[in-house]
Amino acid sequence: MNDRPAVSFTFRGDNVAPVAPEILRALDAANHGLAAAYGDDEYSALLNRKFSDLFETEVTVFPVSTGTAANALSLATCVRPYGAVYCHEEAHINTAEGGATEAFSGGAKLIGLPGANGKVEPSTLAAALRHADRGITNRSQPDAVSITQASEYGTVYVLEEIAAIGAGARDGGIRFHMDGARFANALVTLGCSASEMTWRSGVDILSFGATKNGAMGADAIVVFNRELVEPLSYRLRRAGQTWSKMRFAAAQLIAYVENGLFLRLASHSNQLASRLGRELAAIPGVRLIAPVEANLVFVAMPEPAIEALTAAGVRFARRGGGVIRLVTRFDGTEGEVDQFIALVRRLIG
Amino acid sequence: MNDRPAVSFTFRGDNVAPVAPEILRALDAANHGLAAAYGDDEYSALLNRKFSDLFETEVTVFPVSTGTAANALSLATCVRPYGAVYCHEEAHINTAEGGATEAFSGGAKLIGLPGANGKVEPSTLAAALRHADRGITNRSQPDAVSITQASEYGTVYVLEEIAAIGAGARDGGIRFHMDGARFANALVTLGCSASEMTWRSGVDILSFGATKNGAMGADAIVVFNRELVEPLSYRLRRAGQTWSKMRFAAAQLIAYVENGLFLRLASHSNQLASRLGRELAAIPGVRLIAPVEANLVFVAMPEPAIEALTAAGVRFARRGGGVIRLVTRFDGTEGEVDQFIALVRRLIG
Amino acid sequence: MNDRPAVSFTFRGDNVAPVAPEILRALDAANHGLAAAYGDDEYSALLNRKFSDLFETEVTVFPVSTGTAANALSLATCVRPYGAVYCHEEAHINTAEGGATEAFSGGAKLIGLPGANGKVEPSTLAAALRHADRGITNRSQPDAVSITQASEYGTVYVLEEIAAIGAGARDGGIRFHMDGARFANALVTLGCSASEMTWRSGVDILSFGATKNGAMGADAIVVFNRELVEPLSYRLRRAGQTWSKMRFAAAQLIAYVENGLFLRLASHSNQLASRLGRELAAIPGVRLIAPVEANLVFVAMPEPAIEALTAAGVRFARRGGGVIRLVTRFDGTEGEVDQFIALVRRLIG
Amino acid sequence: MNDRPAVSFTFRGDNVAPVAPEILRALDAANHGLAAAYGDDEYSALLNRKFSDLFETEVTVFPVSTGTAANALSLATCVRPYGAVYCHEEAHINTAEGGATEAFSGGAKLIGLPGANGKVEPSTLAAALRHADRGITNRSQPDAVSITQASEYGTVYVLEEIAAIGAGARDGGIRFHMDGARFANALVTLGCSASEMTWRSGVDILSFGATKNGAMGADAIVVFNRELVEPLSYRLRRAGQTWSKMRFAAAQLIAYVENGLFLRLASHSNQLASRLGRELAAIPGVRLIAPVEANLVFVAMPEPAIEALTAAGVRFARRGGGVIRLVTRFDGTEGEVDQFIALVRRLIG
Repeated sequence: MNDRPAVSFTFRGDNVAPVAPEILRALDAANHGLAAAYGDDEYSALLNRKFSDLFETEVTVFPVSTGTAANALSLATCVRPYGAVYCHEEAHINTAEGGATEAFSGGAKLIGLPGANGKVEPSTLAAALRHADRGITNRSQPDAVSITQASEYGTVYVLEEIAAIGAGARDGGIRFHMDGARFANALVTLGCSASEMTWRSGVDILSFGATKNGAMGADAIVVFNRELVEPLSYRLRRAGQTWSKMRFAAAQLIAYVENGLFLRLASHSNQLASRLGRELAAIPGVRLIAPVEANLVFVAMPEPAIEALTAAGVRFARRGGGVIRLVTRFDGTEGEVDQFIALVRRLIG
Repeated sequence: MNDRPAVSFTFRGDNVAPVAPEILRALDAANHGLAAAYGDDEYSALLNRKFSDLFETEVTVFPVSTGTAANALSLATCVRPYGAVYCHEEAHINTAEGGATEAFSGGAKLIGLPGANGKVEPSTLAAALRHADRGITNRSQPDAVSITQASEYGTVYVLEEIAAIGAGARDGGIRFHMDGARFANALVTLGCSASEMTWRSGVDILSFGATKNGAMGADAIVVFNRELVEPLSYRLRRAGQTWSKMRFAAAQLIAYVENGLFLRLASHSNQLASRLGRELAAIPGVRLIAPVEANLVFVAMPEPAIEALTAAGVRFARRGGGVIRLVTRFDGTEGEVDQFIALVRRLIG
Repeated sequence: MNDRPAVSFTFRGDNVAPVAPEILRALDAANHGLAAAYGDDEYSALLNRKFSDLFETEVTVFPVSTGTAANALSLATCVRPYGAVYCHEEAHINTAEGGATEAFSGGAKLIGLPGANGKVEPSTLAAALRHADRGITNRSQPDAVSITQASEYGTVYVLEEIAAIGAGARDGGIRFHMDGARFANALVTLGCSASEMTWRSGVDILSFGATKNGAMGADAIVVFNRELVEPLSYRLRRAGQTWSKMRFAAAQLIAYVENGLFLRLASHSNQLASRLGRELAAIPGVRLIAPVEANLVFVAMPEPAIEALTAAGVRFARRGGGVIRLVTRFDGTEGEVDQFIALVRRLIG
Repeated sequence: MNDRPAVSFTFRGDNVAPVAPEILRALDAANHGLAAAYGDDEYSALLNRKFSDLFETEVTVFPVSTGTAANALSLATCVRPYGAVYCHEEAHINTAEGGATEAFSGGAKLIGLPGANGKVEPSTLAAALRHADRGITNRSQPDAVSITQASEYGTVYVLEEIAAIGAGARDGGIRFHMDGARFANALVTLGCSASEMTWRSGVDILSFGATKNGAMGADAIVVFNRELVEPLSYRLRRAGQTWSKMRFAAAQLIAYVENGLFLRLASHSNQLASRLGRELAAIPGVRLIAPVEANLVFVAMPEPAIEALTAAGVRFARRGGGVIRLVTRFDGTEGEVDQFIALVRRLIG
């Protein structure tokens, strides 16, 4: 299986990767004896303790099967059905989750804001909140803001930006959600603590991605704002997101953070992206579309080069206007990156 | 971990069990190289072929993380928002999924029907359909029937019953869903083919349980009626039920059915339940509430005996009126069963 | 128009009636000059004052176009999406609103309770609340109880019954909704104050019917529990239930209660029903199915008599088992009633 | 009542107007005898015939209480829950209905398109459809386009534009909805037939506004595409939008179109707007923001002038950046318009 040439040389996504060995071993280790079902087990209790340590505050962790579930159910818990969620206009929740947040929330509205490099600007959010027509019953009412860290463009909000959005959310009386599909990649880039990047900057609830960075099939919702815990627990159960054998999701997530595994894995893919971005930017005719701050690289290059890369068997995502997206992975190698750069040089030179 | 005495001796549920070794090994085996994401991989393709062989017709299989997701999304795809789903009044979908089907369908109505031993009777369904006020716009319109095989009482519909319900559904122009949370247990009991128990008897769509019987965290929706495939694929994705690393769900399900593993596991737990039921029924003062046809045993016994069992550290679920539910597992032992029976004898005698 | 013989002699429903002249005159009177839109007008302000007087407390009144809207939006505001609403198993909300409450609430569950004469018994509610599995995330959580006053069987809850349900709701921490589609008919029967029949007995929110008893097309939601006002105002607007020219709905409702019009109209139809019930019960072979306490009469009679009545051009609703439902109207006459009774006597005698 | 000075001199909206006398008389005329409920009456049958004549094809008409109900329920019937509706980014459905379409559809996505003068450009729609990622399960799938005729800016799509959008919708396999809140105003401007402006140009379903232009509280959904009729009838009923005494809604709508009343009323308000626009545009410092093609006038003027107008008691809506919106009404007068213009001249000159 899986011996198709194209797939073995790909910058298509981080979800094509296998599972980090440490995480698979943790599944084996968890597989003995009995354990209470639906999260009432000791692995789940340990998961809460481990994450509470990591985030330096008491958190509740709900493992879920996908990032879409994490985002949509977090946001559905933050908003009223007639509420609005502010996000970047190109946010994953707004463009690539099939209306999940609208559906789970009972029809809340996502309001896409413009912003350079895929990031919501605090001043844009503030302006949107000022013009939000609060109390006018035919307007969706401000209830939440969601940012993606790292963003869909592979850029990273610095702490001041997060804190400014957090302050705006607090002043505006709305909740602050962070889509951390690539949380570890951003954390490595900032070199700060997990608490600084989240609740200390005002984040109420976090979609904590793990699958893209080495887990098998378990992301998590990390709840900082205690009043969201109970309603979320019901919403998850009826969404079919509460595993009966929860210990195996908990075991993945425990192993993921234990001994800094998630940071090591993310650090590696970040370095590959950084190398990729630096070398590509040095090739005449190739242009970076956004700063490379995580494991994503967006570059513009001549259309014939793109087609030649495709023809050569390299896989990646295309955007309009001669732009391609390259994703590096925890299991990628410098050799692949260098090989790819050489190929681009040859095709363009 | 998990060394609490109570948990190590339990008839509380089948979800407290670990994962069958064959399935864990399959996860290991799947963990090399890259694989396309979101079900576009070769494991998923193989899963479809394996299940198409098993069911002797072309099926589409969608792995999901829980039985609630399987049931609610299957049914949401079968009905209009103003539709009705007929089911047993004590069906899991009606009592223990927190309104999941109502939510995912946009407000469809579950209509609970009475029926002995937890089973919908074909004549009751037929009568309900006759009085359904079709075309009357203030009545929820008949769109689907759902049965649980094996039922919530551990009883099993025989083929004639399933076929009669299937005929009723066809005549009534509604879809037929089977909640097969304990599909393997029922199949073993009937000794028929998977096709006979499903589409040959009129079933359109099946919630195929695997987690209770040895998988780690992967159930599946098996679609026989082709027109449900496309809408379901969208509903699953926006429900957050489409794993990015789908190969690991597919691998579990492939291993689950390969070489008849699922039947061997179910056969074992069925035999334990059978032994438990037979021996308990022979104890004066203990009475079986429903025939034992899968891995569930419902018995009535004097309240002091129930309390003494609990005090002794045995775990099980209670129902009203001195009735308890005992669940046997693929990893259970005859020794446990015999020990339990001896305990009951001692307590009651 | 409307000169079909069958329709001119009917006990089919109260919605076939015209509009009370006083209400039509009020529409004329309201039709001069300008008025602010969407309820910000002086008629709407007056409506709130009039109803606050009527109910002897400060209430907020939201006119809506139908009873279904009143019920479903009231209840959607009372419950969480994973909540449950207790009601009589034959309640209009459970059987004749096409799943409206399920839809507007985002999938809340209606739990039908048995009860003689179409009424929820306080002890049945209390038992249901005791067994509600609070805190268990796969169970719909108790959030509201709804009773119909007068009930779907034309019976009326006495104050002690309402207060007992109100006490049960308060003790159980759930909200209390009254479906008052025939509020005036019940009020006349009890001879108590509107406040006694509602908030003084624990009612949080009321669907106040007017259309069946003389209005043109305006029912109302009357909110006693202030915390429901704001969320309801948003839910109504997005449900398309906030008229732009609200003054005309307000004018209908003001006229409806002014000078006790609603009581006079209901009193008349109640008297007709009472006469109908008394006389029919005296005919051998005819049997009252429920006490006649409002403007509905349920009687069982021999099938040939029912068919003969239909053949004679009388219109009424049929229930199963030889039972028919007769509805009297504010514009009905004693002559019609006597004519009908004579006809039944002739057919049966 | 209603003698507040500000209100008697207002360009705030068309909903502050009273009811056209012809329509009120029709209500009186309809108020005798009995009529079958829920649209099964002869007025409703006549309404369908009248509108079928008007539109020169067999249509089904569903009266509803508001334009929001008309829009949201029409669109919910056109789309799948995972569908997308294309509309102008400033469309009423996207900005001023509190997420009604998202809610009634079960989470469909509104995709706002840019376009001059509040109008969707056919080429923009075509481009959006080309890039819609059909078949990609995490993208909301194209299901409908909605245009507002006359638009929120008071501009009118010419027949060629409508037909081009209709052709785009047909080619793209999506449905075409027209929000005709000011249908009559647009029709008068184009001077074409109602059929040309709708189904002959590809429109499947129409929100037919009447309340803004003289009705009391009845708009309508006019269905051209027969396959939408049945599902819509159920959706309306459970949305609480099916009046029991439907004859009174039907009577309003019949009177509204009879003898061209709706065209006369709209013609008058259009003329007032035209006069207003022409005269304002001639004042130095005042600038029209969009062509005046219906009964709305958008003008920019110096901030002090706007404040002075407000202080003088004139009521109107403000937009950002020194822009105000003036709405003329069927019951407005040339005197008011001239008085207003004189006031502006005085304030600015």
